[in-house]
Amino acid sequence: MDSLEEKTLKSEMIFDGKIIKVVVDDVILPNGATSKREIVKHPGAVAVVAITPANKMVMVEQYRKPLEKAIVEIPAGKIELGEAPEWTAGRELEEETGYKTNGLKHLVSFYTSPGFADELLHIYLAGDLEKQVNPLQADEDEFVNIIEVSLEEALQLIEEQVICDAKTVYAVQYWQLLEAMK
Amino acid sequence: MDSLEEKTLKSEMIFDGKIIKVVVDDVILPNGATSKREIVKHPGAVAVVAITPANKMVMVEQYRKPLEKAIVEIPAGKIELGEAPEWTAGRELEEETGYKTNGLKHLVSFYTSPGFADELLHIYLAGDLEKQVNPLQADEDEFVNIIEVSLEEALQLIEEQVICDAKTVYAVQYWQLLEAMK
Repeated sequence: MDSLEEKTLKSEMIFDGKIIKVVVDDVILPNGATSKREIVKHPGAVAVVAITPANKMVMVEQYRKPLEKAIVEIPAGKIELGEAPEWTAGRELEEETGYKTNGLKHLVSFYTSPGFADELLHIYLAGDLEKQVNPLQADEDEFVNIIEVSLEEALQLIEEQVICDAKTVYAVQYWQLLEAMK
Repeated sequence: MDSLEEKTLKSEMIFDGKIIKVVVDDVILPNGATSKREIVKHPGAVAVVAITPANKMVMVEQYRKPLEKAIVEIPAGKIELGEAPEWTAGRELEEETGYKTNGLKHLVSFYTSPGFADELLHIYLAGDLEKQVNPLQADEDEFVNIIEVSLEEALQLIEEQVICDAKTVYAVQYWQLLEAMK
C-alpha cells in the first residue's frame, strides 16, 4: 500500500467557538505538492437506541438550526469535558426523554463526516428502560418533543425525510436487522 | 406539538473557505431567550455502495486529515457546483475505483451531523459494475488505495475501527440486511 499521510506544515486557528473550533492546515501531499485542509474540531457525541417493552423506539423532535427545520432523531448529545461517553448516553436519554436505562451496550462508534470534521459519535443500545417520575432536566436552551414510533412508522418517517440524519437512519436500519434476524 | 422554531436575529459569516463556510447565528429560542448557533455550511456529498459480481464491496483507503489517519470508506465525494447528485456518484465511483456503473439506485439521504452542519449525504447503490481500462482520473490532491472486501472482512474492519465513518458503517449494515433477507 502507498503511504497516504499528509504532513502538517502550518496550522491556523480560524474560529474558537463554544462548540466547534475551525482550523486550516497547510499540508504536504504524498506526491510532495502542498494543499490546504479545512477542519472542524468537535468534542464528540453520543446517541442512544432505546426500544420500549411495547417495541417502540424513543425519539425526539428537535429544531436543527443548520437545516432550518425540526427533524426526528434518536436521543443524543455532545460529550461534556471529562465525561465518559457511556455516562453522557445515560444522562442525555434521561434528560431528553425521561427514560432511565439500567443497561447500556456499545453498538458502534463512527466519525460523522471525516472529510472535514473530527466529530466521533458513540451509539449505545439502552436496555431495561424505566420511565422516571422526576427525570433530570434538559439544558435550558434545548427544546424537544418526545415521540415513540414502531418500526413501520420509523421507515415511513425516513421515506418522508422527517427522519433524515445519519445516526437515526443507522438506528432504524439496526432495528430492521434485529427484526430480520429474529 | 410545541413549536420548536428558532428565529434568526443576526447571522455573522466567520469563515468562507474553499469547502466549508462557518456562520454564527443569534437566535430567539421558543421560550423567548436568546442563544448562539455555530453552523458549518457544506455543499453536500454523495457515496456509493458498489458490490462486485464476486460479492465484494469496493472501498477506498484514504488519509483523513481531521482524524490524522487513513481509514477505509466507500467511494464518496462532494457535489460540485451545479452537479446532480446521481452524476457525482457515477463520477466519483469511476475516478476513485475505476469501476463504471450502468445503474444507480438511490438508497437514502441523510444529514451527517445536523447539530452543527448542513451537509447532506446521498447514498446510492451501484449495479452492473464494469472495470474500465482507462477510467476518469482522480482529483490531483486525492490519493487513495482501492480494496475489495467480503462482508465478513468488512465487519472485521468495523471491529478494528479501520472502517469507522457514518456512511461506511451504514453501507455495511445495509449489506448485512440484504444478506439476512435473502
